[in-house]
Amino acid sequence: MNTLRINAERLQNNIRDLAMFGLNEVTGGLERTTFTAAELSAREWLRDKLHHLQLQVRVDEAANVWAFRSGDSEAALPVIAFGSHIDTVPNGGKYDGALGVLLALEVMTVLEDNKIATRHPLEWVSFSAEEPNPFGLSTFGSRAISGKLSQKDLAGVHNEQGDLLTDALRLAGGDPDHFEKSRRKPEELAAFLEVHIEQGKRLLARDIPVGIVSAITGIYREEITVIGEANHAGTTLMVDRKDALMGASEIMLAFEAVCRNHPADEVVGTIGKISNEPNAANIIPEKVIFHLEVRGERRSQIQEILEAWSKLALSITDRRGIRLERRLILDQVPEPMDSFVIAVCTEQAQELGHPILQLGSMAGHDATHMASLTKAGMLFVPSLGGKSHCPEEESRIEDIEKVGNVLLQSILALDQQLNR
Amino acid sequence: MNTLRINAERLQNNIRDLAMFGLNEVTGGLERTTFTAAELSAREWLRDKLHHLQLQVRVDEAANVWAFRSGDSEAALPVIAFGSHIDTVPNGGKYDGALGVLLALEVMTVLEDNKIATRHPLEWVSFSAEEPNPFGLSTFGSRAISGKLSQKDLAGVHNEQGDLLTDALRLAGGDPDHFEKSRRKPEELAAFLEVHIEQGKRLLARDIPVGIVSAITGIYREEITVIGEANHAGTTLMVDRKDALMGASEIMLAFEAVCRNHPADEVVGTIGKISNEPNAANIIPEKVIFHLEVRGERRSQIQEILEAWSKLALSITDRRGIRLERRLILDQVPEPMDSFVIAVCTEQAQELGHPILQLGSMAGHDATHMASLTKAGMLFVPSLGGKSHCPEEESRIEDIEKVGNVLLQSILALDQQLNR
Repeated sequence: MNTLRINAERLQNNIRDLAMFGLNEVTGGLERTTFTAAELSAREWLRDKLHHLQLQVRVDEAANVWAFRSGDSEAALPVIAFGSHIDTVPNGGKYDGALGVLLALEVMTVLEDNKIATRHPLEWVSFSAEEPNPFGLSTFGSRAISGKLSQKDLAGVHNEQGDLLTDALRLAGGDPDHFEKSRRKPEELAAFLEVHIEQGKRLLARDIPVGIVSAITGIYREEITVIGEANHAGTTLMVDRKDALMGASEIMLAFEAVCRNHPADEVVGTIGKISNEPNAANIIPEKVIFHLEVRGERRSQIQEILEAWSKLALSITDRRGIRLERRLILDQVPEPMDSFVIAVCTEQAQELGHPILQLGSMAGHDATHMASLTKAGMLFVPSLGGKSHCPEEESRIEDIEKVGNVLLQSILALDQQLNR
Repeated sequence: MNTLRINAERLQNNIRDLAMFGLNEVTGGLERTTFTAAELSAREWLRDKLHHLQLQVRVDEAANVWAFRSGDSEAALPVIAFGSHIDTVPNGGKYDGALGVLLALEVMTVLEDNKIATRHPLEWVSFSAEEPNPFGLSTFGSRAISGKLSQKDLAGVHNEQGDLLTDALRLAGGDPDHFEKSRRKPEELAAFLEVHIEQGKRLLARDIPVGIVSAITGIYREEITVIGEANHAGTTLMVDRKDALMGASEIMLAFEAVCRNHPADEVVGTIGKISNEPNAANIIPEKVIFHLEVRGERRSQIQEILEAWSKLALSITDRRGIRLERRLILDQVPEPMDSFVIAVCTEQAQELGHPILQLGSMAGHDATHMASLTKAGMLFVPSLGGKSHCPEEESRIEDIEKVGNVLLQSILALDQQLNR
């Protein structure tokens, strides 16, 4: 193994500097939602850094930012790409996304400073709009380049203020009129690697600095409507009620119990969104609508949850004389990471002497979509307290440095070992 | 007992005619929310009827409509009043409120037609805005005359369209600038009687045509805030969650169980209003706010529910590592109806040969507030299917006729028996 290492101090400075864009002085959180002024300024700052490195910077039609570094022109191999995103959720943290982009920048810097030549060309990338955003399209950039979004998907899309997505995209340097030109072909890519914070407690609990992602969770969502009978809250005896909210409460608790009882820790279920009709203090609820979400590393796990819950829900609705309507709204399949990339990362971590844990990613990431284009892999950095999407989001520089060096060495190893 | 009886056919025609104001042709329901064009037209129709009877009609500062019939001027006794309200809930029925107003009109008509003189003056009344309405002030008219609303309570009150309550009140003939002149003094009144539909199934279930109200339910409401911890729906293991919505579900079901288990049928509890934060499919709920309502004929019953529920709620929040905040928003005490009025009504029903049931009113009524001014009583007419606040709301004319005759005879008996 070579002696190249990332520069933790330089990286720390960059983390601090990038976190100034969108900083909420009151909460300490970041307000850097995609395509806002703060996010566009952060893009400028990044482009400056990349130009300094003499990389060929371009912004594609989906406003993803790329920086190209040539490989061996005779070998004419496809690209090894790496990066993440810089947009945040409202009042988010300074590591989610940004850390992966800055570690990718650090790798490029080390390679430039040390004049390291690679066989494969390398591409640094910062994807547009990974987080849920006011335009309702998350992992926007990676979905665009992997052919999962088309020009027609942009038509008429706007935020709550009525600003069009197409206008926002143009401001960020994108081109909605030639949107599909952003797509990359599988033959252009050799591999993709993304570093991200874990956003959970598994690494920290085991005191392991390097996470290697085995698969990105599948996300399944249904909209559930519980239908009872509206009635007068005073004159309707308890025994005569068909209360949709009480029925929904029982059904939601049954769902929680099924998820808690599943043997796999990483199978989780959430009911995060709910509404009630007519929602008046003196009327027995007639209709409750909620979003039920199940995540699991394997499709079969998601199925197990749904089957067990459905049976319980049926017995509850029967007993209460209410009924359910179910509507599928998302069925994003679990995406295994590439086994060769996993093996390379594992080997490099071991050579560096860093303990690793293979673990599923319970959040979605751009790497999910990159996996449909090329051999994709992900490295996780431990999150303090498992906290994410909040001002308290933090990772230790010692851990970041270790994962950064695994990234650097893995890119070099992939460059050596991949023959296309 | 005299042979005076109400005219069921005339009454039925009036029920039909009044139901034309605000009729929704599609649903068959009534849209006669207070101070709307439909409700103002219905007021006109009523005033015409009252003028025909040579009564002295006036509209007070709270836009209550009154019609005065003189008593024995030498006796100089206070007034016996009777009536109800004509406003409806959205898509409401044609009996709630209107029946009491039309039966009062029928009584006045029978007395006029038969030239019956009474010792006490009589006053027919139609109260403003009894139902929940867009201005957020129910039992508006009866609260005004009993001194529970002041001019300052009207200041700035508006509906969702921004229309001011004071302007609406002026349109209906009220006078917000001299609002407190609407107040009646206890010495002006000898008694008050209101007929209303039961809005429940208790009379029908026992096949009893005449309900005599023993007390009007107390209504107690708290706003409950359940505080958990927002977190990522993917990366937070089930065991690490402090899910406010799951906690709230368990707490709400505990409340339902306590209400169901209370030995008194007429003690009911409802959670009709709920909101959730941040209410996103992929974020574990941080905060759930709901309105908890308990109704009972006795304060002690309401206390029993709250005590049993509080204990359960505490054990749930402890176990889940979440917490509760409670805020009292309404504590309307149970209001017993006057025992003398109850006795008179009971006696008159018996003389007419009609079975009666004494029962608590589980809905609020104008009579609640009249009870703070004078001896108040209420008569209930059975509701088919217990349905109310909906187009299907209905009562049988045979039952209405029986209760109407009890009203007529009770007013005459009160006139005879009350010596002030």
